[in-house]
Amino acid sequence: MIKIAIDAMGGDNAPREIVLGAVQSIQQDKDVSILLVGDEAKIKAELALCKKYDESRIEIVHTSEVIDMEEEDVARAVRKKRDASIVVAFRLLKEGKADALVACGSTGAVLSAGVLVLGRLKGVSRPALCPRFPNHRGTGVVVCDCGANLECKPINLAHFAIMASAYTQASFGMENPKIGLLNNGTEDHKGLELQRESHKLLKTMTFLNYGGNIEGRDIMYSDTDVVVSDGFTGNIAVKSIEGCGKAVSTIINGQYKRNLWTKLRAAMSMDIIKGIKRSLDYKAVGGAMFLGLTKPVVKGHGNTEARSVPVYVQQVANAVRGNMIEKMKAMIDEANEKMAALEAKQAEAAAESAAGSVKTEE
Amino acid sequence: MIKIAIDAMGGDNAPREIVLGAVQSIQQDKDVSILLVGDEAKIKAELALCKKYDESRIEIVHTSEVIDMEEEDVARAVRKKRDASIVVAFRLLKEGKADALVACGSTGAVLSAGVLVLGRLKGVSRPALCPRFPNHRGTGVVVCDCGANLECKPINLAHFAIMASAYTQASFGMENPKIGLLNNGTEDHKGLELQRESHKLLKTMTFLNYGGNIEGRDIMYSDTDVVVSDGFTGNIAVKSIEGCGKAVSTIINGQYKRNLWTKLRAAMSMDIIKGIKRSLDYKAVGGAMFLGLTKPVVKGHGNTEARSVPVYVQQVANAVRGNMIEKMKAMIDEANEKMAALEAKQAEAAAESAAGSVKTEE
Repeated sequence: MIKIAIDAMGGDNAPREIVLGAVQSIQQDKDVSILLVGDEAKIKAELALCKKYDESRIEIVHTSEVIDMEEEDVARAVRKKRDASIVVAFRLLKEGKADALVACGSTGAVLSAGVLVLGRLKGVSRPALCPRFPNHRGTGVVVCDCGANLECKPINLAHFAIMASAYTQASFGMENPKIGLLNNGTEDHKGLELQRESHKLLKTMTFLNYGGNIEGRDIMYSDTDVVVSDGFTGNIAVKSIEGCGKAVSTIINGQYKRNLWTKLRAAMSMDIIKGIKRSLDYKAVGGAMFLGLTKPVVKGHGNTEARSVPVYVQQVANAVRGNMIEKMKAMIDEANEKMAALEAKQAEAAAESAAGSVKTEE
Repeated sequence: MIKIAIDAMGGDNAPREIVLGAVQSIQQDKDVSILLVGDEAKIKAELALCKKYDESRIEIVHTSEVIDMEEEDVARAVRKKRDASIVVAFRLLKEGKADALVACGSTGAVLSAGVLVLGRLKGVSRPALCPRFPNHRGTGVVVCDCGANLECKPINLAHFAIMASAYTQASFGMENPKIGLLNNGTEDHKGLELQRESHKLLKTMTFLNYGGNIEGRDIMYSDTDVVVSDGFTGNIAVKSIEGCGKAVSTIINGQYKRNLWTKLRAAMSMDIIKGIKRSLDYKAVGGAMFLGLTKPVVKGHGNTEARSVPVYVQQVANAVRGNMIEKMKAMIDEANEKMAALEAKQAEAAAESAAGSVKTEE
């Protein structure tokens, strides 16, 4: 049985939709049990409204505090509010009382509590947020990072590539996910210094399936499985896509509502229209995996409804079943060793050439 | 009669689709005449294939050279190939023989020839590419810059805001276009240094309708008319949207082709499906206006087909009719004066406070 902690107080519709979604989760996956972390009385009130479910698989962990979405200094709030639901949830992971976490509250609070309470995976330079998006192939694509790290170095992007590869392997069974570096063109010389240097570094990492630079249009329309980016650029890209999806929905509705004859055909084509919208629904493909911590954590959308919670639970449960963290550890260690060896070799070569030039000068 | 030069040799489908589109343009707008710039024999051969048209409104300007899409050093090619179609086309503008230009060849060649042959508008720090996109309101939204300037300073973004405002006013009759700064969040403190400083600067420019920071999702789904960005970020955003649009088309086709019953309803709903695709067709809303030169220039898509040429011709013709360049000049002069006054005031205040502190020290 995989034990999943859920922050019952996080998100715009908490605790109602979160609790309802938790109950749906245990019905959809017989292999998970849930720890609902939050205000016991409120959670109990919501559970009482649910249809009959296996009570042995839902446990409440009472907490007395909450970190608001509006909190300005989240790191300080995380340190001070030791009984906040998100802090207690991460502590359960730290103490081995839960295997994974689903949290839909403030991104800042989840990021801070993750690093401060649970802790970072050894060897990872920067943890990152990695959401998943629908694509034209129907396989889904992940984008790492999307806002945890606005400014990055090439080594950070290399770690994002490794972590996101391990994640898609473990959670979605992708055998050899193809990695693309988000850039303003596909040629080697494209991009700012970060992209140019990251491209060089990623090319040396031959144990990854690095396919080179990709453009924005390749996120949803190419054979790329993992998109690597600094957090600022990634954030712009995925939110631009979200806006496009929303505009598409409005446009589809508008075209079908033009007149009585279009409305009639809309009624006849409901299954098709729903199919289109479902294929484009980024909420249906899951939340953002928070990569680089010692356990799997999914950050769900702030406005999460009950139907999304089982999707998030599946994401983390699959990460546990697929040994995501162990895979990631091994890959990170291998990469860091190889990079250290490469650096040592370069330093040696530099020293030799320096010695050579000294000799020449003599 | 507005005289529009068209580079007949630029684009993947040149000269055929360009020439065909030029003929369509004069049929759609009685107020324009076209100068087709390129290989006379080839252009004549294509014109011979067209249906009857008003020959007095299409003139050929023969050129003997072409700048390839693959040219590595475009600036050098522009300087050397003095009889290249794109160079001659810009020279016609410079010499007053044409009022505006449509070019679908290599972006680099258009940017280089624009600056080197035609020249930059006085007071503009950096010319910029400004494509237009469909949005959920059906009004269209422009994004400036999208790749002409990868790295920018706040003053560049301020000029982009002014130029794109003048453009939407002149070409699309928007009275008071609302400007948004593309960022990773809407709060004042969001973004990297460039966004934070640009946000501060834009707020001081009270003669613009600046609405503050916007997120990627607001490009297609908000009340913003003009999106301002550095070229790298803008490029990522608009290409991500393009990819989303392409994926949507594939998904719609897939849903309608599932089985005989869905195919039947597709056949019945052709007008609706076409309406949806038309609303999302970024080619139908026009090319990228190349802002910051002394005359209106549209850079069309590389794979332009004939049907897009009249759209581009309309864009530049409207810019001429709406006095875009004069509007832009006046706004740029006003902005630069105000900014200079502001700087002088700050320098004076700094000098006074320095003098004050010297006195105190005495």
